[in-house]
Amino acid sequence: MGLRIIDSALSTPKKVVTNDDLTKILDTSDEWISKRTGIKQRYQAVEETTSSMAIEVAKQLLEKSKTDPSGIDLIVVATMSPDYMSPSVAAIVQGSIGATNAMAFDISAACSGFVYGMSIVNNMLHGGKFKKAILIGAEKLTRLLDWTDRSTAVLFGDAAAGILAENDSSNSSYLINEKLNTYGNMGQYLTAGNVAALDDPAQSYFFQMNGRKVYEFATKRVPESILTVLREANIDPSEVKYFLLHQANERIIKSVAKKLDLSMDKFPVNIDRFGNTAAASEPVLLAEMLADGKINRGDIIVFSGFGGGLTVGTNVIKY
Amino acid sequence: MGLRIIDSALSTPKKVVTNDDLTKILDTSDEWISKRTGIKQRYQAVEETTSSMAIEVAKQLLEKSKTDPSGIDLIVVATMSPDYMSPSVAAIVQGSIGATNAMAFDISAACSGFVYGMSIVNNMLHGGKFKKAILIGAEKLTRLLDWTDRSTAVLFGDAAAGILAENDSSNSSYLINEKLNTYGNMGQYLTAGNVAALDDPAQSYFFQMNGRKVYEFATKRVPESILTVLREANIDPSEVKYFLLHQANERIIKSVAKKLDLSMDKFPVNIDRFGNTAAASEPVLLAEMLADGKINRGDIIVFSGFGGGLTVGTNVIKY
Repeated sequence: MGLRIIDSALSTPKKVVTNDDLTKILDTSDEWISKRTGIKQRYQAVEETTSSMAIEVAKQLLEKSKTDPSGIDLIVVATMSPDYMSPSVAAIVQGSIGATNAMAFDISAACSGFVYGMSIVNNMLHGGKFKKAILIGAEKLTRLLDWTDRSTAVLFGDAAAGILAENDSSNSSYLINEKLNTYGNMGQYLTAGNVAALDDPAQSYFFQMNGRKVYEFATKRVPESILTVLREANIDPSEVKYFLLHQANERIIKSVAKKLDLSMDKFPVNIDRFGNTAAASEPVLLAEMLADGKINRGDIIVFSGFGGGLTVGTNVIKY
Repeated sequence: MGLRIIDSALSTPKKVVTNDDLTKILDTSDEWISKRTGIKQRYQAVEETTSSMAIEVAKQLLEKSKTDPSGIDLIVVATMSPDYMSPSVAAIVQGSIGATNAMAFDISAACSGFVYGMSIVNNMLHGGKFKKAILIGAEKLTRLLDWTDRSTAVLFGDAAAGILAENDSSNSSYLINEKLNTYGNMGQYLTAGNVAALDDPAQSYFFQMNGRKVYEFATKRVPESILTVLREANIDPSEVKYFLLHQANERIIKSVAKKLDLSMDKFPVNIDRFGNTAAASEPVLLAEMLADGKINRGDIIVFSGFGGGLTVGTNVIKY
């Protein structure tokens, strides 16, 4: 028994914001941004909402897999930028696609939302009450940006992506191992959506990040997490077809590849086109890789996410 | 194997707001409020935050059960009023109590947050990777109130409460059955924390409720959910010691008792002192009942939650 990914899909807003566009409102440059982060452009949801993008992903998943919405019994949306505190994005998706038999809720684990969601969905599928689940990472992070702060405004983008998964009794596709850690004592290094700021102008509602601390955290904890998960599963890193890492900074991805002593060929990168899309990051990458035919049944792939919380998490999947 | 509730705890803000206090700012009366809702007073977090109340609950749970924080491997907070979009309340709790081995995340399922959380935690404990979990419902709903709207401002209050649970191999205490439903097509009947309102003065950030629709929903779906869960588990309603219902309106609770053809003695009520505390509602009630010695090992109890989403859910527990 295990979580089998049936299909994946992604949705992007219409509007593209290039680094050059940002130079018109911020004292920055394409060279500065791309050299330090690898980002060339990002999408910005203007007419789109977190829910509308998530709905688009869910509809694609049903269509591609020819699944009737009544066959879905679990919808989980990982997001740090929901439209409302209630209803959840997942409930809006559930109502919109007519998945009348599905339990729906959001989870909040910031940039680790997708890997945390994989753990939750895997455990719920295993429990036996749920057969088919949709897991979506959906973010409208540009809503949480201070557009006068060049240290954060250049980093984040909007998108949604997700998977349709089922409890597969054939045991040919499954979640092999996982490890999820939280470092709440470092939470202050990355904050966003501080509700107290709505009453207190001395506080900021927007992303506040200690970039150096988060970089140190990621380059230490992500390789540690990946190596632990693989060692426990008795898998050599070289056996992994692709490592789908949260796209926060290309330098972090390169550092992880180096620490694992692996070629960057195993670490697909799309941060140049998307920026950091938090919980949408890994499923966007997965959807692109699958559309390109780069991942096949039987391949071992690794998802690894990290960020606000601080959090880190790794799932090893036999696709 | 199953979820065994080891202990429970609750935390309330210092400030009490009586119905008479509200008559000073709203055109309302104690008689009007208490007759229609059963509410006499509610707590309001002023110095307290959602996180500070959740931390207090977690600390009490560790102390009462003499559990070392390193022994906790899962912390889930159900909330529709987190301090931040990141870090999650659960991550803040995790860091604050030093539960260094715990994965921590929040879930968003509004007033059904606790019963949805019970399902998630139960499935994760069953999965075998997690042994001991803390599940907390924590809300600072007064932050989401329009204090000029007498139809909603009188209803909600602030509190946090939760449980420490473990995977019990003796099978003497466990989650017997559960049913969680979402009706996203009715989501517009209860909204709160609409982020779009932060940019658009034509929209409201605060609670917006179609009271009649939510009342109809609850009085239909809650008895249906409870009866389905009990029937599936082959348990007669009379065998249930207590039904711990979400405290949204005393009239809803009375209607449910009537539809189940049971005495109100089986339906404890504390809405008179707390108002509607969303995800904190059922665990607050549980903590009070356990402190009063009214629930004993072996008793069958039912949690049932309902509200924003719209959502409804029931857990049957052998305590």
